[in-house]
Amino acid sequence: MDVIKLGLGGFGTVGSGLAKILDMNADRIAKRLDRKIEIKSALVRDLNKKRAFDLGPNATLTDNPDELVNDPEVDIIVELMGGLDTARDLILKAFAAGKHVVTANKHLLAEHGLELFQAARENNVGLMFEASCAGGIPIVQTLKESLAGDKVNNMLGIMNGTANYILSEMTTKGMDFNTALADAQDLGYAEADPTFDIEGFDTAHKLCVLIRMAYGVDYPLEDIPVQGITGVTPMDIQFAREFGYRIKLLAHVMDVDGQLEAGVHPALVPYTYLIARVGGNYNAIRLTGNAVGPVMLHGQGAGDLPTGSAVLADIMHLIRHMKQGVTPDNTGFDGLAIEKAKILPPEESESKYYFRFTVADRTGVMAAITKSMATHGVSIAQAVQKGEAGAEGVPLVIITHETRAKDANAMIEEVDAMDFTVEPCVKFRIL
Amino acid sequence: MDVIKLGLGGFGTVGSGLAKILDMNADRIAKRLDRKIEIKSALVRDLNKKRAFDLGPNATLTDNPDELVNDPEVDIIVELMGGLDTARDLILKAFAAGKHVVTANKHLLAEHGLELFQAARENNVGLMFEASCAGGIPIVQTLKESLAGDKVNNMLGIMNGTANYILSEMTTKGMDFNTALADAQDLGYAEADPTFDIEGFDTAHKLCVLIRMAYGVDYPLEDIPVQGITGVTPMDIQFAREFGYRIKLLAHVMDVDGQLEAGVHPALVPYTYLIARVGGNYNAIRLTGNAVGPVMLHGQGAGDLPTGSAVLADIMHLIRHMKQGVTPDNTGFDGLAIEKAKILPPEESESKYYFRFTVADRTGVMAAITKSMATHGVSIAQAVQKGEAGAEGVPLVIITHETRAKDANAMIEEVDAMDFTVEPCVKFRIL
Repeated sequence: MDVIKLGLGGFGTVGSGLAKILDMNADRIAKRLDRKIEIKSALVRDLNKKRAFDLGPNATLTDNPDELVNDPEVDIIVELMGGLDTARDLILKAFAAGKHVVTANKHLLAEHGLELFQAARENNVGLMFEASCAGGIPIVQTLKESLAGDKVNNMLGIMNGTANYILSEMTTKGMDFNTALADAQDLGYAEADPTFDIEGFDTAHKLCVLIRMAYGVDYPLEDIPVQGITGVTPMDIQFAREFGYRIKLLAHVMDVDGQLEAGVHPALVPYTYLIARVGGNYNAIRLTGNAVGPVMLHGQGAGDLPTGSAVLADIMHLIRHMKQGVTPDNTGFDGLAIEKAKILPPEESESKYYFRFTVADRTGVMAAITKSMATHGVSIAQAVQKGEAGAEGVPLVIITHETRAKDANAMIEEVDAMDFTVEPCVKFRIL
Repeated sequence: MDVIKLGLGGFGTVGSGLAKILDMNADRIAKRLDRKIEIKSALVRDLNKKRAFDLGPNATLTDNPDELVNDPEVDIIVELMGGLDTARDLILKAFAAGKHVVTANKHLLAEHGLELFQAARENNVGLMFEASCAGGIPIVQTLKESLAGDKVNNMLGIMNGTANYILSEMTTKGMDFNTALADAQDLGYAEADPTFDIEGFDTAHKLCVLIRMAYGVDYPLEDIPVQGITGVTPMDIQFAREFGYRIKLLAHVMDVDGQLEAGVHPALVPYTYLIARVGGNYNAIRLTGNAVGPVMLHGQGAGDLPTGSAVLADIMHLIRHMKQGVTPDNTGFDGLAIEKAKILPPEESESKYYFRFTVADRTGVMAAITKSMATHGVSIAQAVQKGEAGAEGVPLVIITHETRAKDANAMIEEVDAMDFTVEPCVKFRIL
């Protein structure tokens, strides 16, 4: 049986996961493809570091990228290094050498994706990236193939397991953010430096990739509004719960009369939505197509085996094409140049809001706030004022009807400046 | 721009749905494929019947299958007629004429799938069928491509919207079965003759198709144990709820040491599983792969637009292949002949059970029942006896640990024959 040989860029968690699956499911793979798959070489920084998986005597570790990409026996390069420059160089070299590439690198695709798709096209090779977005959830393939004939009205995604785990712990156990983060780090669900995860950047990278898949347009990463979860408090989680919501770190994109509105924010989701009940470090994506209606995909977003599974699916997809002597459609849009998205200015976005004001317990406060709201056209759906007056002030929570961001921001600016305001207004969108 | 022309077999609900989407999303389709798609002709029984969608002056309605399949301008035949003989004949004629086929016909695939895959292979044409299983959920594509490198440990599916709607109404509103069925029929969620849906046959057809996709083996339809929902009562739903379960009509398959266990039954699912909360006429499939871990897909299972969306995705998949001059892998197993499944004898399957005995309120009943259980190795996890004695007898509900079906059946036979038994034991598996 013919053997397809892989050159891995990097051999850490995901590389070891891939190697384990190739070993564990070798018979299934051979049955499906009539081919064997072997890792022939892996590019690493430290040749002497102990590895989680022993690739065996026939495989080589190298610290030289050219050795990897110029090997005529290697058909597919699997980029698992992460980061920007080294990964980009490796991929471009692989293309120039006529090799297909599978990557898990959402950051690279968000920053340099257009250049990479162009280079892949010019060299007539495949660039596959299911593992870059929520590893265990086949969202890239679903958008590219299964929903190819739909128009995506909107997409909501929980795409970072670390952030979701932290929020779940805060929700189910009433922990504050710092305790939940430390907990997550102890369990290996959060990195020593968790910035990319908790600040929402990782989610924004993935959103950028998925917007291209769903709409065939590029919403530049630097234009995506991003807010992380560090400002979420147990008090907000409790108030949200009382109103019938859960707080999740959500990526969202929606088509508003031909313009795209997108962002990454902690947001309130109705408890009745299945996506509100996604717990722990699971991921989920809920989207609505104008034909298929609402669809939700749920699974593990990270980990050696789930991510390795996505990488393997892409490798097998490439092999099916290689057997027939053709190249896949990398972008799902016939390899056409991806044009820039028509972006709805964020200030024009409309949404329901959750506002938590912290105010001094004084006559006239509610009147002043509601007057400011009325002035700016912000309409109140629900309101609650609770708790005893203390030095910290009294929380006043308001849920609004659909409100324009511009008006919400203007109202907050006005109220935050009022002399009874003890702390700035905390604002979350309701999606 | 080149035009791909379709010949539809049937022009009812799904055909109209497809036509609507082709119209609604024409620009998106053209952007993705650099092709237009048109329905050129449709095979119908009654040329004069009023149709939900006007195909326009360039399309033809015909009642002659040969006219449809022999038209050299038509590249793809879309079989939407349902049923067995006429649909099978049409598809085989289409293959012989060198045309690709897209079908939504789960019954035909379950009964004659192997023959059709063989014929497609011999004629080197595509046979696609995403719409046959839970229309709005991309399960076929997911199993074929995204989870190609995984071994599927088990799959649970709610795949019939009618049955799920009825059970949801019974669960949320306490209705009895007949009332819920009548309700569903009024709303158009159930057919005038709902047999295929409520007896589980429709679900069994889909399970048969999905087992092939997941395992590459054929589990013959006639060997799949099938039990419908007509025996589910509000009392069982209430007891199940108290124990922390919901009752759903579930298709299930699991790999038990290389043998497959499969069936369609009403079953209890833990409330904590997302699949337990699938309501209304939605469908969901939850599966576990040995690499990807647990994955759940959720969406609409039927309807003109969701099913039309799946049909369109298959058409576009075929067009992508046609543009490159190749044929898709129809079975996901390199077109190899699909061997017969190694089937675990149903009596050997192990599962937790819910038993509801209806017994006379008399001394010694509990002792006799528990003695019978002990004799047959059935171990009790939870038990409750409730209600006042009436002429109808007292309900006694027992939840067991993992039990072999053979032992459960023997125990029930023994207890049902005892003189205190007022009604036969009601038995549901817990999955």
